Amino acid sequence: MTERRTVFFVSDGTGITAQMLGHSLLTQFEGVDFNQVTLPFVDSAEKAEECLARIEAESASGNGQPIVFSTLVNQDVRQVVRRAKALFLDFFETFIDPLEAGLGVKSSHTIGRSHSAMDKKEYQQRIEAINFAMAHDDGASHRELGQADVILIGVSRSGKTPTSLYLALQFGVKAANYPLIPEDFQRMKLPEALRAHKGHLYGLTIASERLHEIRQERRPGSRYADLDNCRYEVEESENLMRREGIRSINSTSKSIEEIATTILRELRIQRQVY
Amino acid sequence: MTERRTVFFVSDGTGITAQMLGHSLLTQFEGVDFNQVTLPFVDSAEKAEECLARIEAESASGNGQPIVFSTLVNQDVRQVVRRAKALFLDFFETFIDPLEAGLGVKSSHTIGRSHSAMDKKEYQQRIEAINFAMAHDDGASHRELGQADVILIGVSRSGKTPTSLYLALQFGVKAANYPLIPEDFQRMKLPEALRAHKGHLYGLTIASERLHEIRQERRPGSRYADLDNCRYEVEESENLMRREGIRSINSTSKSIEEIATTILRELRIQRQVY
Repeated sequence: MTERRTVFFVSDGTGITAQMLGHSLLTQFEGVDFNQVTLPFVDSAEKAEECLARIEAESASGNGQPIVFSTLVNQDVRQVVRRAKALFLDFFETFIDPLEAGLGVKSSHTIGRSHSAMDKKEYQQRIEAINFAMAHDDGASHRELGQADVILIGVSRSGKTPTSLYLALQFGVKAANYPLIPEDFQRMKLPEALRAHKGHLYGLTIASERLHEIRQERRPGSRYADLDNCRYEVEESENLMRREGIRSINSTSKSIEEIATTILRELRIQRQVY
Repeated sequence: MTERRTVFFVSDGTGITAQMLGHSLLTQFEGVDFNQVTLPFVDSAEKAEECLARIEAESASGNGQPIVFSTLVNQDVRQVVRRAKALFLDFFETFIDPLEAGLGVKSSHTIGRSHSAMDKKEYQQRIEAINFAMAHDDGASHRELGQADVILIGVSRSGKTPTSLYLALQFGVKAANYPLIPEDFQRMKLPEALRAHKGHLYGLTIASERLHEIRQERRPGSRYADLDNCRYEVEESENLMRREGIRSINSTSKSIEEIATTILRELRIQRQVY
């Protein structure tokens, strides 16, 4: 029988850090079915009491001890919530003390700094990165391509768009993407617009069979989706990248996080995580 | 004098969890200038030694004790890296033991589960959410609008596109967005395409002055960017939302994380965090 447990992600901010940390720990317990509840913006005594009542109700339900992952910065709020009969794992409480000792500096205990727009300049740059990725999706614009930190190239449906968007949203990196099409393979050359930016190019490739599956869903029975055509396009795009000395990654069984991390590391682009 | 410290984010996976956790803690120390280094994919004895050498070099440089945020799942790798003369804060080591005790289950100690594409079905749904957001950006398509978990409405440049993309990428939620334009205000009605989906609509509004600034950058001196016109559009869009009973949030000083979190909470949409 699969065990079922309720997990609360509690935060005075968005709860995104608490949920990401909790999620990464919970994936280590395969036999348990976790019922996940997010309680964001718990930033007052009143909301702390509501939150406590919610956890206590679950605790009393007989479904096993609830688990609470918390990133509560406010100590008063935290003291209320931690009264719950639950396994209470707080990230701030655990790590702030050793950090204060190690740095010899007191922390500011300011809530919601992490996922806020408080640093206006930094936030603005990130929004600009998102707008840039949208404006330069699928070769839509050649303007300002020189501003790109990275330009992803690859055949249609090799994963360029999700990766570009992720690079912009999560890391604040300016990412364009540009399709490689059969005409490029016939010319055996990079598209004209890309030649001035070779240092920023990075290739995505994919297993032909997987590409065939993805394209079949979009345009069933088309030449575009045909397996032989997919094989031809993948092979030619890989040849082109090799000839031009452009590094590439095979996206077939990789997540956008893994692809994006690999690209930034290989192009030595400094990243922020938002 | 501002203190400067080097911080390492070390992981056997992408390092995104380690960096997000570290970033949220470091924002609590305002007087310190942190030099941030990401070391992802540290998943072998050899890479562990490289990583150790890198931290040791920083430690010997006299810049103060380095700080290491780690999400190393592999204990052998972790034992190597923690030999470094550094403040070592490992997130798995700290929380896995109490979780195992609380759950009465042993953890699997499998690396890289968190930001991988291992759960194919879940990953596929997330990629579909991204494709959906792209296909339904700025009212581009009315097809399958009924599949949207949320449809954001608001005037041009009120923050609809970044919020939709964030909802898809970070939370796996299907988000469309649809512009409100002067013709809608003259008709005093919602656009035809939206009327069948009122339960999924959510409004974004923004301070007129901020909207004016953003539009000025796009089309300087245009009627579109004119402050009086921005005031008119914002006021009319707020009137329309009020009349139709559509909830809304003012995006002016909020981050996309805060906006997205608020929307999901108010529409009671269950979220995952990736």
